[in-house]
Amino acid sequence: MGCALATTSLATYEEDKNMDSLMVVILLFNGMTALDAVGPYEVLSKIPNSKVYFVSLEPGNIICQGGLNLVSNYSIKEINKADILLIPGGPGINNLLNNTEILDWIKNIHTTTQYTTSVCTGALLLGASGILKDKKATTYWNQLEKLKNYGAESIKSRYVVDGKVITSAGVSAGIDMSIKLVALIRNESLAQIIQLAIEYDPSPPFNAGSPDKVSKDLLEIFQKAIDKKSSLKDK
Amino acid sequence: MGCALATTSLATYEEDKNMDSLMVVILLFNGMTALDAVGPYEVLSKIPNSKVYFVSLEPGNIICQGGLNLVSNYSIKEINKADILLIPGGPGINNLLNNTEILDWIKNIHTTTQYTTSVCTGALLLGASGILKDKKATTYWNQLEKLKNYGAESIKSRYVVDGKVITSAGVSAGIDMSIKLVALIRNESLAQIIQLAIEYDPSPPFNAGSPDKVSKDLLEIFQKAIDKKSSLKDK
Repeated sequence: MGCALATTSLATYEEDKNMDSLMVVILLFNGMTALDAVGPYEVLSKIPNSKVYFVSLEPGNIICQGGLNLVSNYSIKEINKADILLIPGGPGINNLLNNTEILDWIKNIHTTTQYTTSVCTGALLLGASGILKDKKATTYWNQLEKLKNYGAESIKSRYVVDGKVITSAGVSAGIDMSIKLVALIRNESLAQIIQLAIEYDPSPPFNAGSPDKVSKDLLEIFQKAIDKKSSLKDK
Repeated sequence: MGCALATTSLATYEEDKNMDSLMVVILLFNGMTALDAVGPYEVLSKIPNSKVYFVSLEPGNIICQGGLNLVSNYSIKEINKADILLIPGGPGINNLLNNTEILDWIKNIHTTTQYTTSVCTGALLLGASGILKDKKATTYWNQLEKLKNYGAESIKSRYVVDGKVITSAGVSAGIDMSIKLVALIRNESLAQIIQLAIEYDPSPPFNAGSPDKVSKDLLEIFQKAIDKKSSLKDK
């Protein structure tokens, strides 16, 4: 990292603290993948003067894939704007793709945002809301083809920035995307400080995080687990 | 990945499903860092026949750093064994380091585990419970020196396996650690399948995840934020 960047950092950080508050809205729903929301949350909640709102169809406990409960504090009826909107993914997304109440809500919020974002199959909900039309976008690796149904150009990438719409690949990709988002909405110094704060210096024990990095046999096992709708585990 | 490994995978996966259930116990507490728990949860909950128990001093809503609430379903009084015990970290850990009820609970559970693990400053609670004595261990980058107070040898590493005690570095390191843990408690094929399931193919937009990778100026800004006990943000 260059010193020129570094010397401006402290001033920038002080400015950040005096900036207008940043309203981050994260949609929660039953059957979502907890890490899709909590990875970005851990990054975005550390932006000075940010406030994170967890919203859902009805406020209360949200049952995530695997059983963990996260608490939603607001109904979507109570929230009608956002600086950052984040839609996580997970098996439960399929129950929302035809829900006009939530599709209309996303469409309306999108007109107020600085950035509208998704993690994993959350992109399908953005797509169903019409937001991905003529946009480059990405999603979970085995769902990429579906983006075309929404008029998007599907891109295999960790995250894709197209104007104010940012979509990310599966689950853990939300962490990479949200660090980039901090750089875009604030500055690179703050993004790096937050990366250090969550000690995001990844070192996976295997090189198996992408379908092109694992054997055909492993992919087949994966597919069998999916076909059983078990998401690798009976629930 | 070698084909030899791959060809044994399907059989191994079937075996996994028939294995005894695996009891994963994750401690929750107010002021914890959500990602410390949710990263490993997303990995460990995908082990076939695993069941994750979220426990705390009192069951109910747990307020994490930044405001997100996770739900704990069990009091520590109700849980007296575990195959995997996981202790997350976060600013709230300091309120537990002298709590004899929780220290005794950890000490007792540890006698029943296959693996006792921590993420971030969760290692300090393992230390206070006497579990790190004469062990190699790691923790959040700016807390490493404290491990010596508990008789541990502090190691700067993404995670450290010493016998059945596995400690990991800050926040996001719990994801790397838990994938390694799946390989140890089950097998490498399953670890890789789960890595693919969460598309853990990290690509951070900056190289700033470790104190030796950022400038002195950025470290200074970070330290000022910490000194104000703001954890980068007033709460």
